[in-house]
Amino acid sequence: MGYTSRIIHYFIFKKISVEKLSVIKIGGNIIDNEANLASFLTAFSQIEGQKILIHGGGKLATKMAADLNIPQQMVDGRRITDAATLTIVTMVYAGYINKNMVAALQSKNINALGICGADANIIKAHKRINATIDYGFVGDIDTVDTEKIMQFLHTGLSLVVAPITHDGTGQLLNTNADTMAQAIATALSSKYEVSLVYSFERKGVLSAIEDSNSVIPIINPQNYAALKESGQVNEGMIPKLDNAFEALQKGVSRVIIGDALDLLQLLAGSVGTTIQKN
Amino acid sequence: MGYTSRIIHYFIFKKISVEKLSVIKIGGNIIDNEANLASFLTAFSQIEGQKILIHGGGKLATKMAADLNIPQQMVDGRRITDAATLTIVTMVYAGYINKNMVAALQSKNINALGICGADANIIKAHKRINATIDYGFVGDIDTVDTEKIMQFLHTGLSLVVAPITHDGTGQLLNTNADTMAQAIATALSSKYEVSLVYSFERKGVLSAIEDSNSVIPIINPQNYAALKESGQVNEGMIPKLDNAFEALQKGVSRVIIGDALDLLQLLAGSVGTTIQKN
Repeated sequence: MGYTSRIIHYFIFKKISVEKLSVIKIGGNIIDNEANLASFLTAFSQIEGQKILIHGGGKLATKMAADLNIPQQMVDGRRITDAATLTIVTMVYAGYINKNMVAALQSKNINALGICGADANIIKAHKRINATIDYGFVGDIDTVDTEKIMQFLHTGLSLVVAPITHDGTGQLLNTNADTMAQAIATALSSKYEVSLVYSFERKGVLSAIEDSNSVIPIINPQNYAALKESGQVNEGMIPKLDNAFEALQKGVSRVIIGDALDLLQLLAGSVGTTIQKN
Repeated sequence: MGYTSRIIHYFIFKKISVEKLSVIKIGGNIIDNEANLASFLTAFSQIEGQKILIHGGGKLATKMAADLNIPQQMVDGRRITDAATLTIVTMVYAGYINKNMVAALQSKNINALGICGADANIIKAHKRINATIDYGFVGDIDTVDTEKIMQFLHTGLSLVVAPITHDGTGQLLNTNADTMAQAIATALSSKYEVSLVYSFERKGVLSAIEDSNSVIPIINPQNYAALKESGQVNEGMIPKLDNAFEALQKGVSRVIIGDALDLLQLLAGSVGTTIQKN
């Protein structure tokens, strides 16, 4: 191959193949605090390259359910989603939180498009089948439309995704936001160099839950087993870490867990917990 | 110009210039009734060509406000939107109604994308300034991003639009759905042959409000003046008709008002009230 051909080859293949995509999950107490959320969204707007934000909103949904006198039932930290609760999470996640985040990002010159999994058929799921617990209208993900997401990104849009999916028969389904972030990051990992960040109100994965300075900088399969056995990694963190390892196995380049208020430093790798494949 | 050039010219310019777009506003009692809404959405899914649905949802918002004990104040049929009411309409319109419509359309093989005006910066507005009445967080439309809407339509998406806009500084605004439908139809009228349908629970504009058979088939500037003077056209209908005439003046091809359950017949021109430019 001549020099010119090589240059062209580089720009056509190599350049495209290394385009960066940041998939950021925001959860926990950050969303409830106006000042913290504004600070987080400013940092999000400063991320270079393509970006997708996936948000939770459980605390606001719980408050709305209380205001409407609709009792909530949690099993292992997961919300049992009856019909009334599905209405609430659809309103709170896909309506209130999603649209306020979109409007805030627009004010920071990010052309955000707020969607849920039903929009443009981005994420199809099925109602969870569990022999012992009926989770109600909870969805487990089947497919992610990678092409459609790329179309949006390539017209200059950043996506803001609410954790609601659909089953293709008209039924909306409440879906875990961590799992959605992992599914989106994984699906796009063949097209982009994907960094997946799970951000929340803690500095990272802590070895002592009450000590915010006890961040474990690196977790890999070797020390993960030991951390679980010693109980240093607490139960609430295990599904997040399992999600992280699965994402790495399936092609995501980097997974980082840490404080939403340190978003740019997390992406730079200078703070938080980095999950490593091996 | 030779024969071949003329053929090419026809396909490049003429074909594109006559592509059809239907802009459908759905309001009134239809949205509250599950069977009627399903029937309407089936008809919407059968419309040929590009299509955009703009929905209201006032009755559901009023019910939610009552459930949450948030008093509502109406002036001339318009909702005064304080901060708590803005939260409700954002949840109900952009969340609950919008996403359920999107999921229902997906089940009918329409690849729907549900948005509000803040999404992709489609519709920018400003907070209404009124010397005598403070409408609160109510938006009057400034700009419609025609190019972005066309990009969505041309990738095979149909839009479902909730009547919420934003002002560019992060503030969401409650916006009249009739006005949004007219603004979208008008903005796209230079690119498409646009039919604008205002559909609701009545057979059309009625000359006797209690007689559903008293549909006025055609309203033009001549008989409109007389209908207003005689009181045959009632006050609630006047803003809708003024909107309709403005749309026609600004390039929309056809405006029809009628029963949401007759959607395809309205588009065919066989029922309802057709508004004519002259």
